[in-house]
Amino acid sequence: MNIDGVPYRTIWLAEDGWRVCVIDQTRLPFRFEIATLDTVAAAARAIQEMTVRGAPLIGATAAYGVALAMRADPSDENLRAARAELLATRPTAVNLAWALSEMHAHLAPRPPSQRAEAAYARAAALCDADVACNRAIGASGVELLRATPPRDGARLQILTHCNAGWLATVDVGTALAPVYLAHDQGIPLHVWVDETRPRSQGASLTAWELGKHGVPHTVIADNAGGHLMQHGRVDAVIVGTDRTTATGDVCNKIGTYLKALAAHDNDVPFYVAAPSSSIDWTKRDGVREIPIEERSAREQTHVLGRGDDGALTEVQVVPDGSPAANFAFDVTPARYVRALLTERGVTPATERGLAALFPERAQAAERRE
Amino acid sequence: MNIDGVPYRTIWLAEDGWRVCVIDQTRLPFRFEIATLDTVAAAARAIQEMTVRGAPLIGATAAYGVALAMRADPSDENLRAARAELLATRPTAVNLAWALSEMHAHLAPRPPSQRAEAAYARAAALCDADVACNRAIGASGVELLRATPPRDGARLQILTHCNAGWLATVDVGTALAPVYLAHDQGIPLHVWVDETRPRSQGASLTAWELGKHGVPHTVIADNAGGHLMQHGRVDAVIVGTDRTTATGDVCNKIGTYLKALAAHDNDVPFYVAAPSSSIDWTKRDGVREIPIEERSAREQTHVLGRGDDGALTEVQVVPDGSPAANFAFDVTPARYVRALLTERGVTPATERGLAALFPERAQAAERRE
Repeated sequence: MNIDGVPYRTIWLAEDGWRVCVIDQTRLPFRFEIATLDTVAAAARAIQEMTVRGAPLIGATAAYGVALAMRADPSDENLRAARAELLATRPTAVNLAWALSEMHAHLAPRPPSQRAEAAYARAAALCDADVACNRAIGASGVELLRATPPRDGARLQILTHCNAGWLATVDVGTALAPVYLAHDQGIPLHVWVDETRPRSQGASLTAWELGKHGVPHTVIADNAGGHLMQHGRVDAVIVGTDRTTATGDVCNKIGTYLKALAAHDNDVPFYVAAPSSSIDWTKRDGVREIPIEERSAREQTHVLGRGDDGALTEVQVVPDGSPAANFAFDVTPARYVRALLTERGVTPATERGLAALFPERAQAAERRE
Repeated sequence: MNIDGVPYRTIWLAEDGWRVCVIDQTRLPFRFEIATLDTVAAAARAIQEMTVRGAPLIGATAAYGVALAMRADPSDENLRAARAELLATRPTAVNLAWALSEMHAHLAPRPPSQRAEAAYARAAALCDADVACNRAIGASGVELLRATPPRDGARLQILTHCNAGWLATVDVGTALAPVYLAHDQGIPLHVWVDETRPRSQGASLTAWELGKHGVPHTVIADNAGGHLMQHGRVDAVIVGTDRTTATGDVCNKIGTYLKALAAHDNDVPFYVAAPSSSIDWTKRDGVREIPIEERSAREQTHVLGRGDDGALTEVQVVPDGSPAANFAFDVTPARYVRALLTERGVTPATERGLAALFPERAQAAERRE
């Protein structure tokens, strides 16, 4: 996507051909800074500290993290160590485990001397596959939007939670892919952007990227979506997913479940952009089986923003002595999901629907059981 | 309630016997400052700018605002003007209109020379009535809590949204009245405090007053309640109300509806502390009939907190050029409310239940139709 007319991906190789560049997403929307990763430890830290975030981009960064590790030491031992180090960074998104498995399967059979080059090539291929996947999701989603009559007769009102835009992926985005495509095709639309506390990825990332692309949008509190739906001011909700069970349960940013309940209560379609890399074919009950990351309470007790003087400033918003908790994700049961948008098309959020679209993956999972 | 061992109400007369003192709630939790109101305009501004907030306290402040007006000019014209000025401050809470009607009915028949004294006496009586009402709500609510077995076998887990504690009232609180009473009676409990963006009354006021009283609590994002309920970590939700319809719909802080949906989906009782002063007997459909205040977008785009240097600092959290919207309330349909806690006891959120508890008010409303 373009930033002030210059095309960017969220992750790319530096001019030296081996170091890995990423947009530092902890500084947005007020600073556009590039971080350069030159070790597997730096890649792991970038994931853990959310310099990069979003399930697909986490997977891509992990893949390049393995490449950085192989360049330093292509031994079997280091291949295992790199995988373990990267896997430990964040527990919820399944793309991370998926990308690391892909890399390991690709590299383990090769002699160490070939691993660095093969790792870079494979990481680049995973990135390109992510972009192609997102374009396909966009194409499926735009058909759904085209078939949705705006309730106000004027423009489509879409609500999204957190950031599943191009910043969450290598490019294009998942949940926002249909939005960008529809906007580019001239379909009048407007996006309600949930702030998405505690880290405010909606206010800081989704609003920023929609603004850079010229898509009309309005930032709202996470509390507001239900009210808007009650008053017919939302035509569709589209969100991403960090992990999708084989039965269609969706684990996504904390608060997604609440918006899904409101959509259900007001007969608003609730769509989830779910690339197959997000599907965990081994899980059948999202609420019971998916581990939910708990992050630092400081993300809840403090807010980062831009002060009057233009400097990035952190302010405390909770009284001294009041504890806080920070659950990063929740699970939306499949019954509240109107459809999943995958790179192979749209499906109901059901085991049968997913298995029909991805028979080879579903069968492989069954064989392993 | 006590602040560091000193008993306070949220509103009281200054030592001069006529000026009105309030706790400046825009400075909490980091500054404890008293604001002194000496004109009806100052009282109106205190309500509008949320120096005072919470439906019952808004009513009490408006009552004293009328007293200030009568002290300055007790004419019929000024009585009408004061009522109009105060009524225009905030559109949603019905206690405001109720308190102003009470004051007007009390003062209009009297000769102007008696109005100032009568107004102060009536405002004081309304304040005392609020405290008595809240104590009664607490007594009803604590019986419900006593009858609720903690899911974890150890302590009751209560979730609340926004602030319906003593800071929202003259004293004691509405939603928190049962919590304080249960805590004081030795029932082990813990409160999940929704941050309540955009103004963060949960993080800044509820957490502060619970902390001052020694009630165990944890601040969470507004997004987190559904996840906690899915995992059996909430035994009851208790919130306040700014306006309750004759049929039991509840208009309360934006986001209340989303928590009610999650409570319903997880079979968690959802209680609303509803003093009869919050009941609008003329309304039957909350979503369609109650006007929802829209406040300044700046409350969404900027966050006030304490900086590293200890100073209160406002930071911008939304990109330049991204608009924001700020809906202050939403409506929870009666079907999601397990029970209303009133000063006359507990009732289902139904027209029949409310009319049975308050037959004289229900009949008066019927006669007016």
